[in-house]
Formats: sequence, C-alpha cells, structure tokens
Amino acid sequence: MSDELKNKLFFDKTTIIGVGFIGASFALALREKGLCKTISGCGRKDENLKRAKERGIINDYSLDLKKACEDSDLIFLSTPVGSFKIVVEEIKGVLKKGAVVTDAGSVKGRLVYDLEAAMPEGVCYIGAHPIAGSDKSGIDDARPDLFKNARCIITPTVNSDENAMKKIVSIWESFGARVDTADPFKHDEIYAVVSHFPHIAAYALVNTVADIDSKYIEYAGKGFKDTTRIALSSPEMWRDITMFNKENLIKLMDAFKINLDKIKKYLMENNESGIEEEFLKAQKLRESLK
Amino acid sequence: MSDELKNKLFFDKTTIIGVGFIGASFALALREKGLCKTISGCGRKDENLKRAKERGIINDYSLDLKKACEDSDLIFLSTPVGSFKIVVEEIKGVLKKGAVVTDAGSVKGRLVYDLEAAMPEGVCYIGAHPIAGSDKSGIDDARPDLFKNARCIITPTVNSDENAMKKIVSIWESFGARVDTADPFKHDEIYAVVSHFPHIAAYALVNTVADIDSKYIEYAGKGFKDTTRIALSSPEMWRDITMFNKENLIKLMDAFKINLDKIKKYLMENNESGIEEEFLKAQKLRESLK
Repeated sequence: MSDELKNKLFFDKTTIIGVGFIGASFALALREKGLCKTISGCGRKDENLKRAKERGIINDYSLDLKKACEDSDLIFLSTPVGSFKIVVEEIKGVLKKGAVVTDAGSVKGRLVYDLEAAMPEGVCYIGAHPIAGSDKSGIDDARPDLFKNARCIITPTVNSDENAMKKIVSIWESFGARVDTADPFKHDEIYAVVSHFPHIAAYALVNTVADIDSKYIEYAGKGFKDTTRIALSSPEMWRDITMFNKENLIKLMDAFKINLDKIKKYLMENNESGIEEEFLKAQKLRESLK
Repeated sequence: MSDELKNKLFFDKTTIIGVGFIGASFALALREKGLCKTISGCGRKDENLKRAKERGIINDYSLDLKKACEDSDLIFLSTPVGSFKIVVEEIKGVLKKGAVVTDAGSVKGRLVYDLEAAMPEGVCYIGAHPIAGSDKSGIDDARPDLFKNARCIITPTVNSDENAMKKIVSIWESFGARVDTADPFKHDEIYAVVSHFPHIAAYALVNTVADIDSKYIEYAGKGFKDTTRIALSSPEMWRDITMFNKENLIKLMDAFKINLDKIKKYLMENNESGIEEEFLKAQKLRESLK
C-alpha cells in the first residue's frame, strides 16, 4: 500500500459493534496494518468487552451504542445480522459526517438497501462479507491474519458512494483478502447454496441422529465430524442468517429433496449404475474445489 | 502383547484382496507389528499391485484370486463390499484348513451371515469394520499407524469360532485400535446414521449446487469444504455400501426430510425461536462429540 493511500485510509476512531470472533479479528487486523488510532468496542457483555480491552483488541468500550459510536470514522457491524437495522436506528443520530458504516454479515440482499436508506446525510454504508466464518464465536480464537487469502465480497448498490467503497475495498485488500464485488441479491443466491443451506443440512443431520438414537453419535468417525462441524456454529447467528435468506433457502430445500429422492428411488429399484452416476457427478464437481 | 500371544497370532501367509488405502495400511500394520511372514496382494490392476510390491507393502501378488489365496492363513477382504460374496465363491475351493477370512467392509448385517455360510469346512469368517475410512482410496496415503486409536467394530454371530474371533480382535488391538463388538444388523443401523447417510447427504448437497449453478462452488469457504469432503469418496465403494444398507438408509432419508421440513415450516412462519431451538439442539448434541 502506498503512503498516500495509507493516509487516506487512516481512521482516527473505529467502532466494532459485536466483539466476537470476526469483530475482534477485524480490530486486530486494523491495528496490525496501522490503519487506526483508537478502536472502541460495543456489545452486550461487559465481561467480554473488558477481556477484549485487556488483550489489546480494543482501546476502550461501552455498553451504550451511541456512546461507542460518537466521533467514529468507521463503524463495523459484527453482531448477528438480525440486529443490524435496530443498531443503525439507534446510532444514526450520533454518526459523524463522513463516517463509513460497514459490516461482516453473511446476508446482504434487501438488508443492504435498508441499511443504506437508514444512513443519515453524509454517512455512507457499504456492505461486506468476509468468507472467514467459523464454528468459533469468541475473541479467544480471533487473530489478525484471519482474513489473509480469504475471499471478501463487497456488495455495492447504484447508490453507493465511490469514495467510501474504495476505502472498504482497500481495508480488506490491506488484510490480504481476495476482494470481489457482487450484487446484494446475487450474493444471497450464491451463499444460500455454498454456505447457508449446508448449515441447515448439518443441523438437520445431527438432529436426525437424535431422532434415531443420540448415543449412536459416539460411533462417528472423521467423516461425520467434518460433515457436521458447522452444526457447532452459533444458533443465534444462523437463525438470523437463515431467516434473512429464507426465500433462497426454501427453494434450495426443495432442490435438495429432489436429489435425495432420486437416490432413494435408485436404491429402491436396485439401480446401481444410477447411484454410482449420482455419486460420480458429485465427486467430480467437489474435486474442482480442491 | 505377550510372546505367547504373538506366536499364536503369527501368520505365515496373509492375502490382501484389494490393495487400496485400507488394504495397504492393514498390510503395513501387520508388517510393522511383526505378525506375518509373507503378504500376497490381489487386485484388478497389475500396475497398482506392482507399485505396492515395489514399496514393500506386499511381498508378491497375483491377479488370480485362487493363486493369491493358496496356503494363506489370513485373508483380508478390502475391495468394495459388493464383491465380497463373489470373491469368496471364487476362493473357497482353495482355502486352507484353519485359515481365517476377515474384511474391512463398512456394511455387515446379512452379508456377515452369507459370508459365514459360504466358508468351507475348517475355515472361519469374522467380520470387522475399522472406522478409518477416508476420501482417499489409493496406496500412496496408506500408513501402518492408520488404525491407531481408531475404532474397530467386530461383528461375530452365534456361529463364530471363538479362536478365530480372538485372533481378529488381537490383530486390531495390536494395531492400537479400540475394538468393540456389535451385532451385524445393529452395526448397520448405527453406521447408516453416522456414516452412510452423511455420505448420501454430502453427494446430494454437491449435486444441488450443480442444479443451481456449478460455478457457485468457487465461492465456497471452509464450511462447505468440510461438509462435503466425504463427497470426494469413491463412488463405486459407496454405491455398494448404500445398496447393502438401503433399508436403513431409506428410513433415514425420511427422518432427515422431516427435520428439513420442520425448519422449512419455521422459516415460512417466521418462527425464529423454533429455528433457534432446532439449531441449538443440534449444536448441543454435536458438541458431545468434540
């Protein structure tokens, strides 16, 4: 990064709303890249914020959203996505002119337009989604290099301020992320398939074990563990994500059931080559991801 | 292991039928523990067997099943399970009195009784299933410590020879495996839930991506990769496993669909707490596996 760009990118005060795995990693990365003077944290749990301060992740904190956002140049939303609109309603009265609001939410679509519309004059919102989620949810696993080589999708709209957009792209690029842009609704269509529905499937798979006999889980090997690792993810966070992307998810559930039913039919008909073809088709596409 | 047990356990000749990831690892472990003098390999591909010999995994090999099994004291079946009965029919005429036939198949149930019934007089079959499968299928990744700390399920029947059973248990214990015994049908009920159905779900999940847009797979992160890793597994092997365990799998497909439909209903009804409860229930059970 040139010194000129770095000067332009420097933020006197950044506020992290929701100091968890992603929020704390963002703070650590900002600090490591020297992009910020002061980082304020805001959240629901005093104890967590206190620990984040002790560990040097944030400089100070407040449980009061307005206080945490006063004089802030950059506001980073990393709470469950269901709270974004409520948070923005709460803070919009104190936002400084020229401030940029961004986020790390896994859903975009309509939400991006709603947040954009809620911004007061002179404040810009740019949506972002770093693909660095995890079943981890606390500051203990946060690290400054979390976003290095990770994909980050920025979802501008026709209304997005070009300057604010450049700032957000530059932040993620400085972290070493591979930045892409996508239409907010297209983003949700893509991530419904490659992330949101797989979470639903993993949760449903574990609950199916419970329906048969919970004790059977003890017999699971590495295959089951990997397949259901994401069922360890925060239920609160994923409740919000699935609710916000439900139209795409409902369509996917139906598409998935068609695939399951095809295999079921082949099993019932003893159609061995049909089954092998289905598995082979999946294996080939999955191999392209290696 | 005591010297006495080791003497009893020593096999002059072992035949590995199907020298892939599991068969080669079994051979390497036998050799490392000093339990065998000569290991013969048998399979479909001359080139693979040649490489296995060059690497010291097997001492010699034959493409002819009968020849490979002549004078063998221990026969280890590690081909796809669908071939076990055909292989046994082919070799039963040459099996030596006192020989033990075993396997590493992921399905047991009826197959165990069929294989047992096919044994000539003086030859015992004991079913085994080491939980050390992988999306890997070749000898390149084989290793002698693959079974260390892995679970291995032995599935004796009322007809099983006690001496042969002890031998098989001792082999796996000498490899450091955690040996359990289970009724063959109970085994299939358990592994349908914790392994076989998850494979079907992973294959179907990848095929659902293809239904929407194969290119979307590029956007996948670690969650999708882990959830679908087992879709890299051998289609031929899993065709056989799912066919042999289809009764349990069809039941599970229905149970899984009920769980999916419950989430779908909650999404459609905006029942946020219902969704969170489903996810939380799964998260808790999955955490018990950590």
